[in-house]
Amino acid sequence: MKKLGVVAFGGNALLRSGQAGTIDDQEANAYETGERLLALLNRKYNLVITHGNGPQVGNILLANQAGKQVHGLPEMPLDICVAYSQGFIGYMIEQQLRNVLRANDMERDIITIITEVLVDKDDPAFENPTKPIGPYYTKDEAEKISAATGSRFAEDPRGRGWRKVVASPTPMVIGNIKSIEKLAREGQIVIAVGGGGIPAFYVQPDKLQGIDAVIDKDLASSLLASQIRADKFFILTDIPKVFLHFNTPQEKALDRVTIRQAKQYLEEGHFAEGSMAPKIRAAIQFVERTGNDTIITSSDRLGIDDGGTRIVLI
Amino acid sequence: MKKLGVVAFGGNALLRSGQAGTIDDQEANAYETGERLLALLNRKYNLVITHGNGPQVGNILLANQAGKQVHGLPEMPLDICVAYSQGFIGYMIEQQLRNVLRANDMERDIITIITEVLVDKDDPAFENPTKPIGPYYTKDEAEKISAATGSRFAEDPRGRGWRKVVASPTPMVIGNIKSIEKLAREGQIVIAVGGGGIPAFYVQPDKLQGIDAVIDKDLASSLLASQIRADKFFILTDIPKVFLHFNTPQEKALDRVTIRQAKQYLEEGHFAEGSMAPKIRAAIQFVERTGNDTIITSSDRLGIDDGGTRIVLI
Repeated sequence: MKKLGVVAFGGNALLRSGQAGTIDDQEANAYETGERLLALLNRKYNLVITHGNGPQVGNILLANQAGKQVHGLPEMPLDICVAYSQGFIGYMIEQQLRNVLRANDMERDIITIITEVLVDKDDPAFENPTKPIGPYYTKDEAEKISAATGSRFAEDPRGRGWRKVVASPTPMVIGNIKSIEKLAREGQIVIAVGGGGIPAFYVQPDKLQGIDAVIDKDLASSLLASQIRADKFFILTDIPKVFLHFNTPQEKALDRVTIRQAKQYLEEGHFAEGSMAPKIRAAIQFVERTGNDTIITSSDRLGIDDGGTRIVLI
Repeated sequence: MKKLGVVAFGGNALLRSGQAGTIDDQEANAYETGERLLALLNRKYNLVITHGNGPQVGNILLANQAGKQVHGLPEMPLDICVAYSQGFIGYMIEQQLRNVLRANDMERDIITIITEVLVDKDDPAFENPTKPIGPYYTKDEAEKISAATGSRFAEDPRGRGWRKVVASPTPMVIGNIKSIEKLAREGQIVIAVGGGGIPAFYVQPDKLQGIDAVIDKDLASSLLASQIRADKFFILTDIPKVFLHFNTPQEKALDRVTIRQAKQYLEEGHFAEGSMAPKIRAAIQFVERTGNDTIITSSDRLGIDDGGTRIVLI
């Protein structure tokens, strides 16, 4: 009987820092990350792959705004831009992984599912949107757009201008979750919950609507992993292990951490917000809900016995 | 035992002529078209929905070019833009259809699958690309891009400038076909093969690659419908029936047409290329391969007994 694993691709699985984001770069990165999954496939895992979309949806939002400016095109809201990015990135990972499997004489089908994720419309995150997205504007422009649309804006801390800020609500229900589990347990590699999912809630009892928000991809992946009762949850990042005192002389790599320790390290501020902290929270959530382990590591350490940091129940 | 139907949404299922293409317009149209499907769902059909993407991918290509011009973003190739459009339109149809079902107290799950479609790399269509896509350029600009990228350009017959032209190869293999059939037969409404599918072929034995081409959505839908052995194939368009001598005083609506008659009418030039002719060819192909009927009609006639034109084997 095969085990079921969920692998959350981090940003650099698709786009490395310093790269412009051409399709050739992204395809080559996706291929390389796909090759790393062989270690899990050879260890008899069924897999669900999830992924971020930060740089990609950033470019989509900029093109969207430029399309309005140059051609007068109607601007698409954020939920639609996330849907664009799921189609794009899912297709790209699927295709490159098909090539990896073929080059290694392996037969697995791969399927990409567009995933909506429901959030609570009373989520407190909506009161204080903090996640900057899309183009930079001058203060005047930002005020004008805000008056016309109700969108909120915040000044960039590095002085590059004003940007729209949206909420990052907690994911509550993963769309198509039963199909995702079933397809994966039948042996297909399933790509889902791209970019944390397309956020939506019911504005009326029978009116589901996409919203201007983004969902943390690690939290959404953790929810997915616990709901399909995955045997292991892998969070891929750009470092091989989680560190205490990261980037200081006292830096110390962690091999095995209980969720009690992990919570304490979080409180002590060892993990940067917007970077390692959400991954640790996602890991804790999965371990608490299932009792199974989460591994945080870089893709080249996948399937290596002492690779990565293991977050465990006790 | 339920019947299996494939419904190909035409352009105006999502965008009516004269509309600017705002998301509100498109969502309202998708909702209305979704309501029309109730007639089939109530008649105990399992359904696969396919759809076009002409105006949407047109806008994506324009935004793509504007993003390069204004922000220096890397341009995404056509296959990626088609993937964007599948994510967008699939998500939108899925969401609106969820709302329709909920408003009508019906329980069906809906799933959107990103679909790659393989074509033959020696398809003769590649020698003579004719399908115009994306922005208009001046002759000079077109020549410059053509020299740099190898893309072909053609002058717009209405004098609006020069546009890139791509091939429209014959669809050969529908990606994820077994999963599409299985999910649909289990009762899920499956949305697939958007925009005719993302065209790809093997450039080397183990290198599948997306290509600069577009696949006719009715032909791809017909291939899908015959491969999953659908009981009926519905092609939605903006007129209730197929006409002979369309838009002339001799205009005559067709109720029932054998494939022999349909081929003769095609030869006699009754059906416009780029409009009714590809639908008739798609209909004939499905009927020839399965022996089952194709219905060509407008969405408001779905499920009405004498609605539409029925194309039959004999």
